[in-house]
Amino acid sequence: MNFIKIFAPATVANVSCGFDSMGFAVENVGDEMTFTKTSEKGVKITEITGANGLTLDPTKNAAGVVALAMLEQHPVDFGIEMTMHKGFSPGSGLGSSAASAGGAAYGVNQLLGAPFSDLELTKFAMLGEEAACGTPIADNVASAVFGGFVLIRSYEPLDIIKLPVPDELRLVAIHPQIEVKTKDAREVLPTEVSLKNAVTQWANVGGLVSGLHSNDYQLISNSLTDVIVEPARKHLIPHFDLVKSEAIKAGALGAGISGSGPTIFAICQGDDIAKKVHKAIENAYSDKKIDFNVFTSKINTDGVKTITSN
Amino acid sequence: MNFIKIFAPATVANVSCGFDSMGFAVENVGDEMTFTKTSEKGVKITEITGANGLTLDPTKNAAGVVALAMLEQHPVDFGIEMTMHKGFSPGSGLGSSAASAGGAAYGVNQLLGAPFSDLELTKFAMLGEEAACGTPIADNVASAVFGGFVLIRSYEPLDIIKLPVPDELRLVAIHPQIEVKTKDAREVLPTEVSLKNAVTQWANVGGLVSGLHSNDYQLISNSLTDVIVEPARKHLIPHFDLVKSEAIKAGALGAGISGSGPTIFAICQGDDIAKKVHKAIENAYSDKKIDFNVFTSKINTDGVKTITSN
Repeated sequence: MNFIKIFAPATVANVSCGFDSMGFAVENVGDEMTFTKTSEKGVKITEITGANGLTLDPTKNAAGVVALAMLEQHPVDFGIEMTMHKGFSPGSGLGSSAASAGGAAYGVNQLLGAPFSDLELTKFAMLGEEAACGTPIADNVASAVFGGFVLIRSYEPLDIIKLPVPDELRLVAIHPQIEVKTKDAREVLPTEVSLKNAVTQWANVGGLVSGLHSNDYQLISNSLTDVIVEPARKHLIPHFDLVKSEAIKAGALGAGISGSGPTIFAICQGDDIAKKVHKAIENAYSDKKIDFNVFTSKINTDGVKTITSN
Repeated sequence: MNFIKIFAPATVANVSCGFDSMGFAVENVGDEMTFTKTSEKGVKITEITGANGLTLDPTKNAAGVVALAMLEQHPVDFGIEMTMHKGFSPGSGLGSSAASAGGAAYGVNQLLGAPFSDLELTKFAMLGEEAACGTPIADNVASAVFGGFVLIRSYEPLDIIKLPVPDELRLVAIHPQIEVKTKDAREVLPTEVSLKNAVTQWANVGGLVSGLHSNDYQLISNSLTDVIVEPARKHLIPHFDLVKSEAIKAGALGAGISGSGPTIFAICQGDDIAKKVHKAIENAYSDKKIDFNVFTSKINTDGVKTITSN
């Protein structure tokens, strides 16, 4: 293989109760990236379109950092040239750097003859996430690499559990065009939480995981509760409470902050309800004088995917 | 039905990561209780055998409190006489009061013509648990009433999720004959925990629930980790670390404190490993000058059961 073009999905991390532990991949929003073997060794990013402010310097770009680390661990006699077409904005809370990093891990791995497992690709992608956000958090990158719903059971050692995705799950998300930096969103978090709230949270994580396993949409809905992170962060997102309540009124199973925001996600059962929720969220934001876009998607169960290769 | 004799199982609450949220029922250790209709109205406890220090006063006894509350909500023109034969000691950490309370809820419900659901029976049983321990915690009583592994997803409203039990799961438990009062074991708990530890804990709860759903014994093993409650409580139980490490060395999937202790539980895959773990735990305690008993059991998947009725 000398060339590969891939799709790297946007991802929703945290998923209400599962802060730093859960995430899922989006079917129809993501980046396209190409990877081409070159006779000149090393990593080169030749083009980034669809987003401003991203560096072409491979030692600083999330995708570049990943590619360099992979070539260091698996030396070859060729180089790799990358292009990136961002399908969604950095700073949206939909795992922009994770898509770049996870996409790079997958694409480079293919050109190398696929020596690395998905778990290893996740570890490489975490290096890119760290370069971009300052923290090597796995929830977005693991969701991008593995696809579907994932649980990061442990960081040391890294243990990623792929959870089942009930067929009818749909995502509706709104991205208000303001920026919330991951770093800022981390700074508002409490360092300590009450044991009582922690118990509430882990009981809901257990419920969400059980609901996904048993196709129990009511249980999924009941479990989409966050008593720790959402209360601390929601003031960073204009009209969060309104969007959430309108989504739930329109039939969503639950809604919350996607990653560190500002995107707000709603999870729905089935296309009909997703349509109603899409409309309700759109209406809620239409007079708020903040640019936004709303999209509806299935859950991506495959993770990063090949579009073409030769 | 004028008479019923029932078996009310011992239960293991918390199960390492799932403090106040998870529990399971034991197959072959528990209480036997009888319930007889009487022409005289009210509730009478005529006999308690197998344990000392339990009151016959129905307004104070866990089983009596449950029976009185049920008759208040569902008045009938007869009374109920109970006997209790305790198959294990109060203060063992195996849900003694929960067995009495859950057993009473089940037995009385049968004499009443079964007007109440398992969820309602759990709520009644929680009143008995509160009378005995001061806290209306549901993990033991829900495990006793529902059987199998349970997740208390929420207290308000009470939401009990019955989780699958992989066939080969076995319990080995050691009860050192010292008393640890639930109240004392609660007082050593931190009121605040670090967000980092809370995340670790809820990721493991997610892993344990997923492992039970997918028969993944390795995942169950990896998830049986408690970074919050066990470190705070284990000093109350002599030789806890030794028992745990010997159990794991002998092949147990994991081990921890049963409820508030002093019983230490180990979970194993299959009878052969359970036998080895049983022996290893026994050896570990044999020279410690503390009386103890060790037992091995399947997981009880039915909860409280009828032995005979007429």
